[in-house]
Amino acid sequence: MQDLTIAIVGATGAVGTELIRIIEQRHPKLRHIKLLASSRSAGKRLTINGRELVVQETSDDAFKGVDIAFISVSTEVSRRLGPIAVAAGAVVIDDSSAFRMQPEVPLVVPEVNGADVTWHQGIIAIPNCSTTPVVMAGHPLHQVNPIRRITAATYQSVSGAGAAAVAELRAQTRQVLDGGQATPSALPNQIAFNVIPRIDSFLPSGYTREEQKMADETRKIMHAPEIAVSATCVRVPVSISHSAALHLEFTRPMPLAEVRKLLARMPGVRVLDNPEAGEYPMPWDVAGADEVFVGRIRQDQSHPNGIALWVVSDNLRKGAALNSIQIAEELVRRDCLRPRASPSRHK
Amino acid sequence: MQDLTIAIVGATGAVGTELIRIIEQRHPKLRHIKLLASSRSAGKRLTINGRELVVQETSDDAFKGVDIAFISVSTEVSRRLGPIAVAAGAVVIDDSSAFRMQPEVPLVVPEVNGADVTWHQGIIAIPNCSTTPVVMAGHPLHQVNPIRRITAATYQSVSGAGAAAVAELRAQTRQVLDGGQATPSALPNQIAFNVIPRIDSFLPSGYTREEQKMADETRKIMHAPEIAVSATCVRVPVSISHSAALHLEFTRPMPLAEVRKLLARMPGVRVLDNPEAGEYPMPWDVAGADEVFVGRIRQDQSHPNGIALWVVSDNLRKGAALNSIQIAEELVRRDCLRPRASPSRHK
Repeated sequence: MQDLTIAIVGATGAVGTELIRIIEQRHPKLRHIKLLASSRSAGKRLTINGRELVVQETSDDAFKGVDIAFISVSTEVSRRLGPIAVAAGAVVIDDSSAFRMQPEVPLVVPEVNGADVTWHQGIIAIPNCSTTPVVMAGHPLHQVNPIRRITAATYQSVSGAGAAAVAELRAQTRQVLDGGQATPSALPNQIAFNVIPRIDSFLPSGYTREEQKMADETRKIMHAPEIAVSATCVRVPVSISHSAALHLEFTRPMPLAEVRKLLARMPGVRVLDNPEAGEYPMPWDVAGADEVFVGRIRQDQSHPNGIALWVVSDNLRKGAALNSIQIAEELVRRDCLRPRASPSRHK
Repeated sequence: MQDLTIAIVGATGAVGTELIRIIEQRHPKLRHIKLLASSRSAGKRLTINGRELVVQETSDDAFKGVDIAFISVSTEVSRRLGPIAVAAGAVVIDDSSAFRMQPEVPLVVPEVNGADVTWHQGIIAIPNCSTTPVVMAGHPLHQVNPIRRITAATYQSVSGAGAAAVAELRAQTRQVLDGGQATPSALPNQIAFNVIPRIDSFLPSGYTREEQKMADETRKIMHAPEIAVSATCVRVPVSISHSAALHLEFTRPMPLAEVRKLLARMPGVRVLDNPEAGEYPMPWDVAGADEVFVGRIRQDQSHPNGIALWVVSDNLRKGAALNSIQIAEELVRRDCLRPRASPSRHK
């Protein structure tokens, strides 16, 4: 990995910042790095792997010589930049919803469907940060007892809406504590001392796009189009880490001992479930951690084949930046950096 | 109602404060009022219906001459005071979990099962503040298409844990904003910029008592022991109003138009569901309101007979104080102030 040239597009954003941190932890010898952003952030200086780099504006020829481009910007900007980067010869690992559901684009959580990187055609998408913990917890169970239905209610942190929303939560909270009025800007409603049952826009079904993404992406990543999914996605006044209360319905009854054993064995999952000792995962504790934490594991007393779970993960790390880096590592390990579907571009 | 003598036990607490406010709004001519509390709060002066009253310590003979005693204290203290108040001739309307599941104690949400006040034997219980919105939304639908199963994930405000928890949220939030460490006291964990997937203590099933209450109380109030219920109860950094994401499964498919019609007709329920205009209920807006607000109404795409809902209500008002006052009004209206089961005590 250390001989590659990489670009981080959106380097000054919430996920970009985390990408830099994770590269420093996992690939400290990687030296050929381009930090790209919008014109607004161009000129800023950031340190990565011991060197100070100037953030450049993302021009159309910025991707020349780049092997892997990590793109974490708005869906609209991704839609424009993705093909440009691919045309320049880069493999794109994209964090937006621009490409996720395109049939020719693998949507990958390496621990679940790492092999899907092999059929990429230049772009690999990572799932929405609320989907990742669901498939990380659901996949190992689904292997032994197929999941029929998932209902989810999420408790999503503001960093999922970007760095501006994190700043808004802090500033607005102080304002409200001081008796002032909240003036929402990055988020659709007041978030201080409030929860917002709406993330992204509404579909005719009454579900939000975020809720629909959880359903569609879960099925695609798990190769399980038959799983029924219904989610309610809610923004809560937390800075980092998304939580979710899940009800899973299986084909057959699912003994708790087996659930615990399977989850404990799953790479990237950590079971934290010791109620008597007051141990269950919480977003404040999980922020900064790599694993998806699972707790509150119990037999669903309302369904003979059901279990209930509580999952928490750092939406900027496993939910975004870490998953992107893991996909890059998977590409290198499997020697799939050049798209297989266009053989002329193989080295 | 205005000729009665009432006592408010726990007058200085979060619910007691709200009881005083609601009496001023609904029964401004009520004059015979005793404000009772623990020795710690005795001596405080509070104004109600234009008169300043001194809060008295709740002694064993404090209930002499009292017609209705509203008790909102800890379960342990309720367990002790309830029978004392009844022995003194009062009807007790109790806000704790001490008596709720006792077969001889009606558990009442007047809009749902107001007639249950008729068989009281001195004590009437009000449900947990997370149960009330579920039965208010579920009852009118259950009447036309029996509910088979309810799954719920709650977003409960800190005022459900009392006035000390409200103060803790504010103080701790400021501390964390200033870079300090949180030191939980009223709540089991840090609540500032965090969510806690645990309310009350754990049962051997893995559910918490709060979650089990939601199941048991819902069935008792709705006279529907056959409804399967599974809840995950979570504390969020909100001061007032509990929210919940609900999935309801019916006996037959449930058309949305019918759901909306039935909910719109239900007294005490207000449908606020206009996604295009950005209208959905949120705790910050609902605090101080009497109604249970229902929004995000949609066909559950994961179940043929299912719908999904989002409910929000002020846990101190409809979730506690208002419901208690409504029970008192129901007792007066039905002329059931004296217990029917002990005829010697009828006037």
